[in-house]
Amino acid sequence: MKITEVRVETFRYTSDKAKDIQGHAHPADPHDALQSLLTIETDEGVCGYSFGEEVGMAQGLARPLLLGENPFYRERIWQNLYQRQRDGSTLSDRGLDVIDQALWDLAGRALDQPVYRLLGAFRDKVPAYGSTMCGDELEGGLNTPQAYADFALQLVARGYKAIKLHTWNTPTPGAPDVRSDVAACAAVREAVGPDITLMLDPFHYYTRQDALQLGRELERLDFYWLEEPMDEASVSSYIWLTEQLDLQICGPETAKGGLRTRAEWMLRNAADISRVGTQDVGGLTPTMKIYHLAEAFGMQCESHGNGVGNLHALCATSVAGKYHERGLLHPFIDYETPPPWLNALPDPMDDEGMVTVPQGPGLGLDINFDYIRDNLVSS
Amino acid sequence: MKITEVRVETFRYTSDKAKDIQGHAHPADPHDALQSLLTIETDEGVCGYSFGEEVGMAQGLARPLLLGENPFYRERIWQNLYQRQRDGSTLSDRGLDVIDQALWDLAGRALDQPVYRLLGAFRDKVPAYGSTMCGDELEGGLNTPQAYADFALQLVARGYKAIKLHTWNTPTPGAPDVRSDVAACAAVREAVGPDITLMLDPFHYYTRQDALQLGRELERLDFYWLEEPMDEASVSSYIWLTEQLDLQICGPETAKGGLRTRAEWMLRNAADISRVGTQDVGGLTPTMKIYHLAEAFGMQCESHGNGVGNLHALCATSVAGKYHERGLLHPFIDYETPPPWLNALPDPMDDEGMVTVPQGPGLGLDINFDYIRDNLVSS
Repeated sequence: MKITEVRVETFRYTSDKAKDIQGHAHPADPHDALQSLLTIETDEGVCGYSFGEEVGMAQGLARPLLLGENPFYRERIWQNLYQRQRDGSTLSDRGLDVIDQALWDLAGRALDQPVYRLLGAFRDKVPAYGSTMCGDELEGGLNTPQAYADFALQLVARGYKAIKLHTWNTPTPGAPDVRSDVAACAAVREAVGPDITLMLDPFHYYTRQDALQLGRELERLDFYWLEEPMDEASVSSYIWLTEQLDLQICGPETAKGGLRTRAEWMLRNAADISRVGTQDVGGLTPTMKIYHLAEAFGMQCESHGNGVGNLHALCATSVAGKYHERGLLHPFIDYETPPPWLNALPDPMDDEGMVTVPQGPGLGLDINFDYIRDNLVSS
Repeated sequence: MKITEVRVETFRYTSDKAKDIQGHAHPADPHDALQSLLTIETDEGVCGYSFGEEVGMAQGLARPLLLGENPFYRERIWQNLYQRQRDGSTLSDRGLDVIDQALWDLAGRALDQPVYRLLGAFRDKVPAYGSTMCGDELEGGLNTPQAYADFALQLVARGYKAIKLHTWNTPTPGAPDVRSDVAACAAVREAVGPDITLMLDPFHYYTRQDALQLGRELERLDFYWLEEPMDEASVSSYIWLTEQLDLQICGPETAKGGLRTRAEWMLRNAADISRVGTQDVGGLTPTMKIYHLAEAFGMQCESHGNGVGNLHALCATSVAGKYHERGLLHPFIDYETPPPWLNALPDPMDDEGMVTVPQGPGLGLDINFDYIRDNLVSS
């Protein structure tokens, strides 16, 4: 089998979300937005698909390397593309992720198997945690500790057994502020009671002392983990914080260097729980390696982001990962309706808070090709 | 798909090899011997196959756990079987390996793909090294340094670009002896010249000082690696030896603990090159994890043993592994004719010393079912 074409189709949809200057998403008035579908075609007719906002440039860079290649040679393709990343101006981890996921999707479609079974399945469903958007100034949104508490009760009623707060971040006025973070966490714990698992993902550039103070309060509130409260480039800060706290520190998430950076963090005990998302490390291929690395050191490694590739990886993982991150959630956002380019949610959750991995071939995305064709901007 | 039966068929063949009291194989007069075929059957008709001398007990233990299970849930099956190993009296790593490889074979046959492509291929062929049997007392065999030199020249003529010596071991009279090891290594280097890569696997229970003395001589002879010259349970000895020598130390090989033991060795710099064979760690599933672990630490990890599962793993590995171990070889043994239960060699080598991974579905073994049926001892 040979790859004969690598296409990107960019299409329009109506979005109710917008990113702030730090890249965090918030509710927004409906507006036009763009999404892209990557298609990898082969001489045997079978295709692989993956979505990504930033895939256009990646496709341009990767196409010459992919054309004529056997799509089952994922390791060879990945290593070649990874080495192309060395010049930081070129292929992003998110772009590489979209390509790698499309190759996995293609393999699964060619063999009529869901990806997690190709990988060697461990389970069909995993517990989710409801992951809130960052705090905002919206009345009825996530603008006060009480607003977080009210929303948390809605999430518990929906079936979530675990909730992760993203609190206020720059550029929201007043943020960052440890006391506000603690107030929101305390209000949520008070509202949901002791049996709901809670995590926090706050401002990412606190000092060591601020992070320690925050962590101590989270210990009192019986939180399950704290993630990325400091710049992850300072591994020493994470070693220091992990030593001080019984509270589990989870990371790295955004630090560059994928598999090897996680190995160094484990070697140095820089966190209690490791972290991986396909979008952060350039695909499902390195994600599985990171779960294997975590297993080698008896460490938990938690999934970052709601991508369907993350869900397949998690269901092929035994010891390492536990939760699927479902969201981002907000009182104004309908998460339960799929985006218009999909006919079904990739991560449907039952009322016990369990998410079942898609059972269709490949990544199992049920793609609305008609919608995409009708809303094409460029191809 | 569900597993409906797990069968072992034991059959007779004529062997020209016998193991000494330490478990090392040597040439022997033709004699009756037993081999076993493990078959995992499913309700969809597709089967997975794997061979192993010791698979009988493993099948008895694993069968209740496998029956009714989906054979694509390899990770779940493997973790369950692995946990059954805790009581050391039960499931051996070799038994677990045969089961895990049969599951991979089944998946590949079900999907009509060679296993290394299911894994995500990196390459189709790898260089082999010719791996000799241990020294003996056989005239014209491997009984003197000159005999090793003569045999090495035959191997070079056959196409090998790399050769690994197994020298004299107990219970051969006079063994172990560092001076004899060095004499054999020197004779081979003298015979083959500087361009052939040479490795040594000597007696496994030398003292630190003997191992250091041996290593210093191998440095002078420009050897590529030294493996298992000391008891691998003494990790401190390996840390010590690795610090002293520029010569690369390769291991662990026989130390128990699979993935996690290798993580500890990497963490402690106990060897320069890691090592993995499916038979040592309980299958292809953990073998891939170990290659991923090695990649995380930028380490080479070399394949142990000529099993076809090792060859598939190696061809799905990018950075970590280099050589296929071909053998064991001896002047009296014909390695190029397949055993009677196979119609073709699993690791055919061209005259450039390259071995191509089988391209058939699953593990790609071309099984002679007629021979097995005609020579059944028990089923």
